[in-house]
Amino acid sequence: MNYDALKQECLEANLDLPRTGLVDLTFGNVSVADPARRVFAIKPSGVRYSELILSQIVVLDYDGNVMEGALRPSSDTPTHRHLYLHFAGIRSVVHTHSRNAVAFAQAGIDLPCLGTTHGDYFNGPVPVTRTMTPAEVAGEYEWETGKVIVERFSDLNPIQIPAVLVRNHGPFAWGLNAAKAVETALALEIVADMALKTLSLNCPANPAPAHLLERHFSRKHGPTAYYGQK
Amino acid sequence: MNYDALKQECLEANLDLPRTGLVDLTFGNVSVADPARRVFAIKPSGVRYSELILSQIVVLDYDGNVMEGALRPSSDTPTHRHLYLHFAGIRSVVHTHSRNAVAFAQAGIDLPCLGTTHGDYFNGPVPVTRTMTPAEVAGEYEWETGKVIVERFSDLNPIQIPAVLVRNHGPFAWGLNAAKAVETALALEIVADMALKTLSLNCPANPAPAHLLERHFSRKHGPTAYYGQK
Amino acid sequence: MNYDALKQECLEANLDLPRTGLVDLTFGNVSVADPARRVFAIKPSGVRYSELILSQIVVLDYDGNVMEGALRPSSDTPTHRHLYLHFAGIRSVVHTHSRNAVAFAQAGIDLPCLGTTHGDYFNGPVPVTRTMTPAEVAGEYEWETGKVIVERFSDLNPIQIPAVLVRNHGPFAWGLNAAKAVETALALEIVADMALKTLSLNCPANPAPAHLLERHFSRKHGPTAYYGQK
Amino acid sequence: MNYDALKQECLEANLDLPRTGLVDLTFGNVSVADPARRVFAIKPSGVRYSELILSQIVVLDYDGNVMEGALRPSSDTPTHRHLYLHFAGIRSVVHTHSRNAVAFAQAGIDLPCLGTTHGDYFNGPVPVTRTMTPAEVAGEYEWETGKVIVERFSDLNPIQIPAVLVRNHGPFAWGLNAAKAVETALALEIVADMALKTLSLNCPANPAPAHLLERHFSRKHGPTAYYGQK
Repeated sequence: MNYDALKQECLEANLDLPRTGLVDLTFGNVSVADPARRVFAIKPSGVRYSELILSQIVVLDYDGNVMEGALRPSSDTPTHRHLYLHFAGIRSVVHTHSRNAVAFAQAGIDLPCLGTTHGDYFNGPVPVTRTMTPAEVAGEYEWETGKVIVERFSDLNPIQIPAVLVRNHGPFAWGLNAAKAVETALALEIVADMALKTLSLNCPANPAPAHLLERHFSRKHGPTAYYGQK
Repeated sequence: MNYDALKQECLEANLDLPRTGLVDLTFGNVSVADPARRVFAIKPSGVRYSELILSQIVVLDYDGNVMEGALRPSSDTPTHRHLYLHFAGIRSVVHTHSRNAVAFAQAGIDLPCLGTTHGDYFNGPVPVTRTMTPAEVAGEYEWETGKVIVERFSDLNPIQIPAVLVRNHGPFAWGLNAAKAVETALALEIVADMALKTLSLNCPANPAPAHLLERHFSRKHGPTAYYGQK
Repeated sequence: MNYDALKQECLEANLDLPRTGLVDLTFGNVSVADPARRVFAIKPSGVRYSELILSQIVVLDYDGNVMEGALRPSSDTPTHRHLYLHFAGIRSVVHTHSRNAVAFAQAGIDLPCLGTTHGDYFNGPVPVTRTMTPAEVAGEYEWETGKVIVERFSDLNPIQIPAVLVRNHGPFAWGLNAAKAVETALALEIVADMALKTLSLNCPANPAPAHLLERHFSRKHGPTAYYGQK
Repeated sequence: MNYDALKQECLEANLDLPRTGLVDLTFGNVSVADPARRVFAIKPSGVRYSELILSQIVVLDYDGNVMEGALRPSSDTPTHRHLYLHFAGIRSVVHTHSRNAVAFAQAGIDLPCLGTTHGDYFNGPVPVTRTMTPAEVAGEYEWETGKVIVERFSDLNPIQIPAVLVRNHGPFAWGLNAAKAVETALALEIVADMALKTLSLNCPANPAPAHLLERHFSRKHGPTAYYGQK
C-alpha cells in the first residue's frame, strides 16, 4: 500500500506547528488518519521540526502496529489511536503544549464561552478531563489518556466541540483533515488568550448568551452556514 | 461605473490587518465607502489575507445590492452598511477580533480613559454595546448588530469616539479613510493592552483627568491641532 | 554652524525606537543635545519612522528657536528643552509610550525596585510625577510637563535615576548619549514587564534589599564598576 | 593546550540566547566546562551578542585563573565556577534574566509543578535561594551567589532539578552540554510563563499529582525513558 499522500499531509501539518507559534521546542505532534484503510501517519518522537522530513513520518494501523517508518512514533501515539477508534468521523488529531490552553488545563478549569470567537469554533466550553489515578498513570499511560478524554465526552459531541484540555497536561484538538485540526488548535490558543485577559478584568466571568453562541456556530457550520464561499 | 480606486484602497487596508497583527486567521475585514455614489467595497467572506486579490473585493450599494464581484461579501457586511447609513461623514469601517479589545468586549466593560495615548485617539471611553436579544440574534443578526452600535451612540459623537466594542464579540472602528480607520483599530488594541496592564496594578482604576485628555485630543484633532505637519 | 553629526546621531536613535519595539505608530521621539553649543536635534512631529530621513531632523537652540529644518519639531519639544536646561550633564532624551512603563504611569505607581535588572540601571524606584493642574495643562502644556518632571527630581539625582513616568502619560528616559538613552528606555520597559509579572504573583511587593541593589548599580556604574570591558 | 572546541561550543550557545528570546540587551551568559582538564570557557563581560566572536571567549581554570583570552570574563564567572566545583557531572551553566523566570525570583516564590511540561524537565519545583546578607553582597558577591545556590540544593539533586532562581535576581540553569543547558533555560522560561497564566486563573495553585510528574520525568530521563529516538 502507498502511504505517501497521508505522510505528506501529516508532514505539512506538523511543520505548521512551529510556524503558527503553537509549539515550543518539540512539544507537539499531528497525526492524520485514513479511516477506510484503518491506518494513521504520525510524527516521530523527539525529532526537531526544522529537521523533519517525509521519510521519518511513521504509519501505524488502528491496532498500533507500525506499517511504515524506521523511527519510534510520538510517545503520545496511543492517545491519538484511541481517539480514532472512538470519535467517529475525525481524520486528524493535534496535540500541543500551547501556553494559554495549558494555563486552563493546569488550573483545571473548563475554557468558558465568553464570546463569538469561541462560538465560531466550539459549540460549548472546551472541557478539562479528570485527574488520572496512580494506576492509570503507572499503566498504559498514553492509552489511558485517550480513555479519560473519551470518558469526558460521554455526553458531549466531539464534532461540535473538537478539542479537550487534558488536566495538568495540555490540549488535544481534532478535525476532518489536518489543516482544519491545526486551525482548531490555533483557534483554541487564541480564545484561551482572550479568556485569560477577560477573566483578569472581572470575576466572575461574564459568559456569552447561548443564543449568540448558537448563531455564530451555525453561521460557520452545518446546513445553514453562510460564512465563507459556497 | 469604475470602482477600481475604491477596491484598491479596500484591498490595501485589508492586507494591513495581518501586517499589524490585528487579526488572527480570517477574523477581520475592512470596507471603504464612496458616500457620493452610495457604494462601498468590502472583503469577501472567509478568504485568507495571503490569497486576497483585487478582483475578489466585492462592491455593494447602500441598499445592499452587489454592484461588482463574484464572491460572497463578508458575513458582517450588513453591520458595515448600517454604519455608513447612520454615521454621517465616515468613509471606512474596520472589524477585527483583536485580542485586547475583545477582552473588554467579553468582560462587558467600557474601555476607560487611563492616559494620553487613549486621549490622542478617543475623546472618552470606548463604549460597549448592550446584550442583543434572542429575537435580534435570530433575525437579521448582522444588521441588528449595526443597530445596537448606533443605539449605543445615541448621545455620543462617532467622529470623536471612532470605535465601539460589540458585547461578547469584538471591536469595530471607523474613520475618514481606510488607512486612518485601520490606524484607529490598531490604536484601540494598543490602549486596550495598556489598560489591561494598568488595571492589573490597581483597582479601582485611576482615570486620567478630563482636562488632560481634552488637551491631548485637541492637540491632534480639530482647529487647534498642532501635532504633525501642516 | 554644521549640525550633521548631531542630526545623524538623532536620526539613528529615532530609527532604533521601532527596531526595539519601544514605539507603536509614531508614539515616541529622541533628541540629542550639544550642550557646549546650547543646541539640540529632535524628530519632526508626526513623521513615520519608516519615512524619516536626515534632512527632516529639526535643530533648535536652548531658547527654542529653530536653527535648521523645515518641518515642525515634535510637539514634545518644550519638555525635552526643559530637561536640558535643568538636568546638568545629560545629552539625550527619549520619550515613548512603551506599554509596560505606561501601565505604571497610568496606575500612578512608582516602578518599584524588585530585582537586580532594575538595580543595574536605576539606583531607586522610577518615580511618577504628580497630576498636572488644569492651568498647567491649558497653558504651555509641554513646557509644564518638563517642570513637573524637574519638580519630581527635587531630591532625586537624574544621573542615578535616568528616567521618569509622567502620570497618565508615559516614560521619559535620558543619558549621556542617544544610544545610552535608548538603551535606558528599553531597560525601563523590560523591568516594567518583570514588575507587572512579579506583582501579579504576590501582593504586597517583595522589594529587593538595598544592599543588593547598591551592589548591582555600582558594579556597572561609577569608580568601582567592573562589569564590561575597561 | 587547545581550547578551540570548548570555545566553539561556548560561542554557539551564547549566540542561541538572543535567538531564543531568552536575553534582552546583554543580560545573560553561557559557560562550558571540560571537567577532565578542570577548565571552562565563558562569554566576555558586556559584549553584545551580535558582535561576539570566537577569539573573545575567555577560558579559565577551576581556580579562576585566565588560561586564554584578552577580555574580562563575565562578571558572573565566580558563580559559574562555584557550580562546576560543587555540582558533579554538569558541563554547562546558563545565566539569563529571562522575564517570566525573573518574576518568580523577584516574588521569592518557588516555581511550582503545575503540569507535565514542567515535569518533562524538572523533577520538582524550581527553588528560590534565600536573601543574601549584606556581608555576602559586600564581599565576593558573585562567589557568594554560587554558595547560596549550592546551599539551596543541600537536599535537592541538581541533575534532577537542573535550574535555580536566585532571589531578586534571576535564573541559572545547567546541563550535560551547552545545547542541553540552553534548552533547559528555555524550558524554564516557558513553564514560568505557563505558571504565571495558571496562577492568574486560580488561587491557590492546583499542583499536578506527584505520580503524573514522576511518569513524565521518567519517560524522558533515566533507564526507562521512551521519549525520543534510541
